[in-house]
Amino acid sequence: MRIIEGGVCAAKGFTASGVHCGIRASRSKRDISLIFSERKASCAAVYTTNLVKGAPLDVTKAHIADGYAQAVICNSGNANTCNSNGIEIAEQTCQLLAQELGIDANDVVVASTGVIGQKLDINPIRKGIPQLVAELSKSGNANAVEGIMTTDTEPKEIALTFQAGGKTCTMGGMAKGSGMIHPNMATMLVFITTDCAIEPKMLQKALSNDIPNTFNMVSVDGDTSTNDMVTVMANGMADNSLITEDGPDFQAFMKALNTITVTLCRKIAGDGEGATKMLECIVSGAKTKQTAKTVAKSIICSSLTKAAMFGADANWGRVLCAIGYSGADVDVHRIDVAFRSAAGTVEVCKDGAGIDFSEEIAKKVLSEKEIDILVNLNSGDQDATAWGCDLTYEYVKINGDYRT
Amino acid sequence: MRIIEGGVCAAKGFTASGVHCGIRASRSKRDISLIFSERKASCAAVYTTNLVKGAPLDVTKAHIADGYAQAVICNSGNANTCNSNGIEIAEQTCQLLAQELGIDANDVVVASTGVIGQKLDINPIRKGIPQLVAELSKSGNANAVEGIMTTDTEPKEIALTFQAGGKTCTMGGMAKGSGMIHPNMATMLVFITTDCAIEPKMLQKALSNDIPNTFNMVSVDGDTSTNDMVTVMANGMADNSLITEDGPDFQAFMKALNTITVTLCRKIAGDGEGATKMLECIVSGAKTKQTAKTVAKSIICSSLTKAAMFGADANWGRVLCAIGYSGADVDVHRIDVAFRSAAGTVEVCKDGAGIDFSEEIAKKVLSEKEIDILVNLNSGDQDATAWGCDLTYEYVKINGDYRT
Repeated sequence: MRIIEGGVCAAKGFTASGVHCGIRASRSKRDISLIFSERKASCAAVYTTNLVKGAPLDVTKAHIADGYAQAVICNSGNANTCNSNGIEIAEQTCQLLAQELGIDANDVVVASTGVIGQKLDINPIRKGIPQLVAELSKSGNANAVEGIMTTDTEPKEIALTFQAGGKTCTMGGMAKGSGMIHPNMATMLVFITTDCAIEPKMLQKALSNDIPNTFNMVSVDGDTSTNDMVTVMANGMADNSLITEDGPDFQAFMKALNTITVTLCRKIAGDGEGATKMLECIVSGAKTKQTAKTVAKSIICSSLTKAAMFGADANWGRVLCAIGYSGADVDVHRIDVAFRSAAGTVEVCKDGAGIDFSEEIAKKVLSEKEIDILVNLNSGDQDATAWGCDLTYEYVKINGDYRT
Repeated sequence: MRIIEGGVCAAKGFTASGVHCGIRASRSKRDISLIFSERKASCAAVYTTNLVKGAPLDVTKAHIADGYAQAVICNSGNANTCNSNGIEIAEQTCQLLAQELGIDANDVVVASTGVIGQKLDINPIRKGIPQLVAELSKSGNANAVEGIMTTDTEPKEIALTFQAGGKTCTMGGMAKGSGMIHPNMATMLVFITTDCAIEPKMLQKALSNDIPNTFNMVSVDGDTSTNDMVTVMANGMADNSLITEDGPDFQAFMKALNTITVTLCRKIAGDGEGATKMLECIVSGAKTKQTAKTVAKSIICSSLTKAAMFGADANWGRVLCAIGYSGADVDVHRIDVAFRSAAGTVEVCKDGAGIDFSEEIAKKVLSEKEIDILVNLNSGDQDATAWGCDLTYEYVKINGDYRT
C-alpha cells in the first residue's frame, strides 16, 4: 500500500470540481462540489441514525438502491434539512446535474451540509451546475474538497494504491468535519472513490464492517448530525477481477478502505471545531470489544477531559470518572492510565489510584498537537481506539453565533 | 408553603458551621462544613451511579444503613476519590467528629468534593473539627454552604415551612454545583434537613421518588460525578405525628421536598461552570413520560444548543437535531419549538419545519438570564422539564486548568 496525491480524483476514471454558486454570500469560498465517474460505479453508503434526517439522504438512498451511481453533488452552507420542500430541491438538483452530464438522475448521489431549517434555493445550484461540469478535471479534488467545507479549517483528503486481483488499484477519499460530529452507525460527509472492481453487495459489506471501528469512534461535540453520510463509488477501471466474495482481494480492499477511513477520522478529529489538539484514546485489556469501545468513546466525549487536554493538565481523575459513568462493566481497581505524545509518555494512574509523576514532564507531553490517552483495563485482550479533540474557547466562539 | 431564610439551619434542632481548615491553600475560602442535629434523625440518601465512587460514599452508605444519622461533615478541595487510603481517611474523619460531638461515628454522614486522585490529608481535618463544633450555630448555614463550594460562584440554599399532621414543619437544603454535573439516579452534593417526623423508609421513598424528576434532569456538562450524593435528615422536632405511610401528610412532605429540590436544581443549573444563562427545557405532548424526559435531557445536553444559547442565536435546528438523536421515539414532523424568557416568546419551528420569525425579537428573548426552550411533540399528554446552562468561554477556562 502506498500513499499518493489526488484525493477523490486519484482513482482511474474519476474527475471532480468545486465552485462558488452563491449559496454562501461570500464569494471567497466554494460552496458546491461534484465528483464524476466515467463509468457507472458500484456504490455503497451508510447514513446517520438521527431521526431528523436531511432530505438529501432520502433521495440518495432511493437513487443507489440498485447498487450503482455515477456522480456525487454536495453543497455547503445549507443542510437542506427541516424544510417543507427539501426532497423536491434535492431531486431537482439531481435532475439538473443528470441533464448536464447526460446521465440518469437515479445515478446521482446528493448531499448537503450547513445550517438546518432554512430553505435551500435551487437558483444558485441551477446556475452553478454547468460550471461544475465544465470544470471537471483530474486535479479538481482540491476545489471539490473546499466546496464541502463548513467550519473546517483545512481540507481533508487522502489517496493510496493497493494490490487486488493482480492489478494495482487506487482509492481516494475526502471528508467534511468539523462540528456536530458524533456519528452513530454512520458519520459526517465522506466521499470515497476507487477504480477497484467490486460488486455492490461486497462494497456495502466492506463499508458496513469498517464504519463501527472508524467513523463511529469519532466525536467532536457529542452531537450526531442530521446529514451524516459516507459513500463509496467503485468504477472497476483498474481491471482487476471483480471482487464477488470474501478472500485475499476483499481483505486487501478492506485494508485499503480502513487506511483511508482512519486517516480521515484523524483529520476530522484533529480539525474538530476550535480544536488545538487531536486526541486518540486507546483502550486495551478489555473483556469484550464492546467494553473497549464504550470506554474509549466515553473518555473522548467527556467535556471535562477535553477541557483538561486543552489546558495541558494531566487531570487523569476525569478520565477515570468518564470510564466509571460509561456504562461499561469494568473493575475500576485494575485501571492503568498514561498520556503519550511525541514528547514522551507519562504514567499517571495504576490500579485505579494515582501514582507520583512529574507535573513538568506531564505538561510537556500534553503540550503536543497529538495526544494519546492510554487506558489498560487489565481484564482481557480486547482493544479499541476512539478519536476526538480538545474543548476550547474557539469551539464556543464558532458555535455561539454560527448563523451570522 | 412559605419560603423562609436559614437554609439547612431553618428546621428545629439543626445547627451548622463552616471553617477553613487548610485542605485548600487559600485561607480566604472555607473548606469544611458541619451540619448537626440535636436529636438523632431519620436519614435517607441517593448516590452516584458512577462505578468510580468517592470513598466517602461507601462510608456514608454503611453508616446510614440503619436509617439514622445525626451529623454531616463535608470538605471541599479534594474529592477523596481514587486514593489507596480513601476509606480509612473518611472513617477517621467520622471518628474524630463523633468524639468531639459525643455521638456515635455510625451516625455521621461524610462527603468530599474537589480534585479526584489526590490523597486527602487527615491533619487539617483533625485540626478543623474542634473549631467546626465550637462554631455550630443557628446562623451557621451561610458558612456551611461556603465550605462545600468548589467552582460555584454563589451559595445555593433554600428553606420553607409546610403543614403536616397539624403542625408547622420546616425544611431547608443546601447544594454544591457546578461542574461534573450530569446526575444519573443520584446527583451532586445536596444536604437537606427537616424537623418533620417521618420514618426512615418513608423518607427514602420520598427522596427516591423525587430525584428522577429533579436532580436527574439537570446537566451542566454531561459528566456524571464520582461523588454525587443527596441526603435528607429528618429529626422529628416539629412534633407532628410520625409519617409512616402514604397519605396527606406524606404528600405534603413530598411537595415541600420537591420545592426544595427544584429550587436547588435551578440554582445548580444557573451557576453551572462558566454559565451566563440558565436553560429550562419543557417538553410537552409526549406519548410517554420517558419520551418527554429523554428529549428534554438530550436538548439540555447538546453542546451546540448550549453554545447557541450563549450567543443568543435562535438556531433551533440544533434543538431538532438533539431531539432526533436522543433515541426517543418521536414523529419529527409534528414537533413545535419556541423560545421564551422574561422578554417574551418567539415561535421558531412548526411541524418540524422552520417558520418565519423576527431575528430581532429572538435576539431579545435569548439575551435574558433565564431561557425556556419549549418543545411540543404533539403526540400525547406527557411532559417533563430539564435544567441546564449555556456553554461559554469561561467553562473552558475553568476546566482547562482546574488543578492549578
